Amino acid sequence: MAATIRDIKKRTGLSLATISKYLNGGNVLPENRILIEEAINELHYEVNELARGLVTHKTKTIGVLVYDIQCLFVGSMLHYLGMELHKKGYGMLICDSCNDEKLQKENLQFLLSRKVDGILVFAVGMHGKFLHAAKKANVPVVLVDRSFQDEEYDCVEVDNRTAIYRATNKLIENHHKKIAVIASNIEYTGRERVKGYSDAMNQAGLEIPKEYCKLGRHSFEHGYRGMKELLELEDRPTGVILGNYNTMLGGIMALNESGLSCPQDVSLIGVDNLPMTQVLRPKLWLIVQPMETMCEKAVAMLLERVNGEQNGMPVKISFSTSVREGDSIRDLG
Amino acid sequence: MAATIRDIKKRTGLSLATISKYLNGGNVLPENRILIEEAINELHYEVNELARGLVTHKTKTIGVLVYDIQCLFVGSMLHYLGMELHKKGYGMLICDSCNDEKLQKENLQFLLSRKVDGILVFAVGMHGKFLHAAKKANVPVVLVDRSFQDEEYDCVEVDNRTAIYRATNKLIENHHKKIAVIASNIEYTGRERVKGYSDAMNQAGLEIPKEYCKLGRHSFEHGYRGMKELLELEDRPTGVILGNYNTMLGGIMALNESGLSCPQDVSLIGVDNLPMTQVLRPKLWLIVQPMETMCEKAVAMLLERVNGEQNGMPVKISFSTSVREGDSIRDLG
Repeated sequence: MAATIRDIKKRTGLSLATISKYLNGGNVLPENRILIEEAINELHYEVNELARGLVTHKTKTIGVLVYDIQCLFVGSMLHYLGMELHKKGYGMLICDSCNDEKLQKENLQFLLSRKVDGILVFAVGMHGKFLHAAKKANVPVVLVDRSFQDEEYDCVEVDNRTAIYRATNKLIENHHKKIAVIASNIEYTGRERVKGYSDAMNQAGLEIPKEYCKLGRHSFEHGYRGMKELLELEDRPTGVILGNYNTMLGGIMALNESGLSCPQDVSLIGVDNLPMTQVLRPKLWLIVQPMETMCEKAVAMLLERVNGEQNGMPVKISFSTSVREGDSIRDLG
Repeated sequence: MAATIRDIKKRTGLSLATISKYLNGGNVLPENRILIEEAINELHYEVNELARGLVTHKTKTIGVLVYDIQCLFVGSMLHYLGMELHKKGYGMLICDSCNDEKLQKENLQFLLSRKVDGILVFAVGMHGKFLHAAKKANVPVVLVDRSFQDEEYDCVEVDNRTAIYRATNKLIENHHKKIAVIASNIEYTGRERVKGYSDAMNQAGLEIPKEYCKLGRHSFEHGYRGMKELLELEDRPTGVILGNYNTMLGGIMALNESGLSCPQDVSLIGVDNLPMTQVLRPKLWLIVQPMETMCEKAVAMLLERVNGEQNGMPVKISFSTSVREGDSIRDLG
């Protein structure tokens, strides 16, 4: 027979009101807190979070909408978000949008019907209209990694434009003139990165041949095909910027197969220091996002909204990226 | 002001009992169902799944315990499980055990406190004792991919021993004698696979030098280091079995860096036809698990238990694997 709140009353001698207040996260006197926690442990009392949710109007569950649960970057971010939410006593209800905006909208409805306390969004595309339903339901939202072109929400990202501007300049400093980019152009982050590339090239007075811009989906396949095409060009680039982690792995695989080598034939700079990067040779130059910090911040921002500690206008937080030095850039000077 | 069940009553002229029965998933007359659904749409009535959960004792939420959310195989399985659960109106509450048995146990408690209807488990290790708490709470469990050495639960997996027995024989048929394996030995599935390798080698009367068995964690790094060590052996193997997807990618990366090539210098056979496999050259021989079917079956088994349609003893379902032909095995005959 499972222990009830009345058993805790009997054991502690405290009122049901006090015990109930404790169970619902309210403040009780420290000595009462100790008594209650001892009783909970001894009696193996288990809180019914569901029943608690109806009383507190909180489910202690955060919805997470991801554009693609198979993406390596997303997997790592979920790892950090999960650890941070776990620390705070929250669970993650994860929905995979499979890179499909229609499914993303359905998933949002699903999360709202589950009365999640807040939602973290890795958005599929550039438009935020689908989130109006969350606004209407008063459920706070924090965007992670990708913001929108048309709507403002709390958002945690990196300064993507500056990041790739810096990557491009690293190649320019090493006297490269023929620089190509392989990146995503279907969402905000990818587009910002391409702008950073153009900014740096224009500023240095370098030409951008159309065939040096390989734009497409955020995927391994896009990186593989893009690199293959670049290496087959008659006037092939001496340096290539690999605009995201999946694309980077695909690009390296294509280079490995080509018989050409890095940095002798092609110099490379990529994004994100994830597990596979650490065993690649030559050691890659990388733009590194502070993934763990981004996740901590996203959770903190969301919980402030959930707990009503923050009611102001949306805030966008752009972390800076750092550069990890490697051996993948050849100095042509 | 949000619509209530009373607004639906007013609009449809039906009794609260009928409407409530519909909302809780009960059978109502088809004409009443149509009336209610029209009213729900017109009034933008949103079901409070939380309140419904307290009435029906169902949360329509399935807990998923994964050993490592960053693992590529796990990411793909979550993709298929998520789609299948979504179809049936269930959400996934995912907890990442970070390959840590202590965290896995805590995560289970967390899922139980959320009153999930059932739990899918990708187990960290070989022991099932931590699941006793789920049994006690009467929450059904289905293991996916990895079963236990010491306890029986419903389980969906592939016949791992036969799968790698078959992979090994594929190399033997092509007149290989010096065959190595890189695999995981920290969980049940990995160990079964190694047994399949030993079975085939013993049956063919082939020797297994100790240095040909690279056993360790289920990781990219293990594959990378294992392959590097194999290729540096004075008497290096002519064929290598790559025992899981992460290990396979690491092994291929090491081979690419070595200057040796496949299948001229080393023949390869791997496991799992996931996205990255499709762009690798030479085309790999692969043991293929029916991942989508496994996920459908796991969800079906779990929901049968959840809905009380199945109360029998635990059942283990082992799907057979298939072999995808490739160009990565050289005939030495």
